[in-house]
Amino acid sequence: MASRPHPFADLIGLAVAPDGKGGSTATLTAEHGHMNPHGVVHGAVIYALADTGMGAALYPSLDAGQACATIEIKISYFRPVAGGEIRCTTQVDNKGRSIAHLTSRIEQGEKLVALATGSFAILAAPPGKA
Amino acid sequence: MASRPHPFADLIGLAVAPDGKGGSTATLTAEHGHMNPHGVVHGAVIYALADTGMGAALYPSLDAGQACATIEIKISYFRPVAGGEIRCTTQVDNKGRSIAHLTSRIEQGEKLVALATGSFAILAAPPGKA
Amino acid sequence: MASRPHPFADLIGLAVAPDGKGGSTATLTAEHGHMNPHGVVHGAVIYALADTGMGAALYPSLDAGQACATIEIKISYFRPVAGGEIRCTTQVDNKGRSIAHLTSRIEQGEKLVALATGSFAILAAPPGKA
Amino acid sequence: MASRPHPFADLIGLAVAPDGKGGSTATLTAEHGHMNPHGVVHGAVIYALADTGMGAALYPSLDAGQACATIEIKISYFRPVAGGEIRCTTQVDNKGRSIAHLTSRIEQGEKLVALATGSFAILAAPPGKA
Repeated sequence: MASRPHPFADLIGLAVAPDGKGGSTATLTAEHGHMNPHGVVHGAVIYALADTGMGAALYPSLDAGQACATIEIKISYFRPVAGGEIRCTTQVDNKGRSIAHLTSRIEQGEKLVALATGSFAILAAPPGKA
Repeated sequence: MASRPHPFADLIGLAVAPDGKGGSTATLTAEHGHMNPHGVVHGAVIYALADTGMGAALYPSLDAGQACATIEIKISYFRPVAGGEIRCTTQVDNKGRSIAHLTSRIEQGEKLVALATGSFAILAAPPGKA
Repeated sequence: MASRPHPFADLIGLAVAPDGKGGSTATLTAEHGHMNPHGVVHGAVIYALADTGMGAALYPSLDAGQACATIEIKISYFRPVAGGEIRCTTQVDNKGRSIAHLTSRIEQGEKLVALATGSFAILAAPPGKA
Repeated sequence: MASRPHPFADLIGLAVAPDGKGGSTATLTAEHGHMNPHGVVHGAVIYALADTGMGAALYPSLDAGQACATIEIKISYFRPVAGGEIRCTTQVDNKGRSIAHLTSRIEQGEKLVALATGSFAILAAPPGKA
């Protein structure tokens, strides 16, 4: 996936990569354009790290031709972020035949900013493909 | 809130307003910059409509000096969006003294794209204020 | 399903039935055995109405040989229940080929006690069956 | 809390205790009365371990006179349980002034059965108390 264009990641300045141990790391440096009317980072920016990080963690484990899609994600916020680097580490908690469950921890320095858990559908290769 | 700058809404082209009936409507026209590597709208864009819409629905009901903050949101996705206008309507399901619960429906035309539910903290006026 | 034994429903006194309109209704009269140490109905009793109600709402729409299983449910609580009848009405919000999304409203009289949303997997008939 | 009656825990045979390290352990031996119509343990029984375990993990950290209440819990299921001992270990991920976030892992032997995350309100002592 790393080589395919990702316009939304480019728009918000998000970088993501598998961590080589079955998870992923996503990072973003919060700037003016990420802010909500209260002057702190919009919750959707933090969510973007989790959603993108979950996809990046799951992809390397898929079989050729399989794809995945977010079924649902719940994200809980613990403290506002005023700016600076935000880091999201994602792990696969469970991978069944057709559904995977992942957890993302979003941190700034040593502080836990948010936690997210998500269910992803593992989709079979389309007929005629792979 | 409408008069305060909202840099992230500007960045992604999101417009939101209370609907005058205790809820809100948020809209966005999906373009190239909203896309994920699969060529459909990134889940975080759809999430942004819900999170922002929930804040906009709750704010008008707060007392002077009160603020609100997202505790958690869960969003479930039903179909991909290839582009075009996305509309999010949010209602307040329950408002307690310190916590409110909201539901957002994200639709494209007549099709239900996603559903989100969230818990918001209603924060007392800071000391010395109000 | 109505004719198959349901030991846990019997244990807690839960009754559930499809409503004939694509949803279900589940009811329970809260008694001493449902209480937590605070003297109000345990959250898991209220959860049981939602989880059971979602299965009952989805089952009638399945094809012969299909089954369903809970992927995840999120439940939000709004007020404690001291006793008496609790009623849960469930609707199917979206039904895809392999995943359905449902919402349950748990009420006592006219008061909204809790809201739950869930994702269910729609499972193909086992090989050799149907 | 351990000394106060817990009728619902007695009804379903659930035992719970703080683990002395800021978390809790809850256990239950699944029997006939816990089963759903498919002959496996009802999801609400597994949920009961998480909800009860979260309360038990949080209580010892509260100040005198404080109480806590479940705002919301999301639980995700990974495999059915046919019977036998189920164990739930809960930790506090974050504790703010008025809201705490907890995670419960429900396991049978070495197998992960379910994961739950919850938000709890930390309630001030009632007026005139403490």
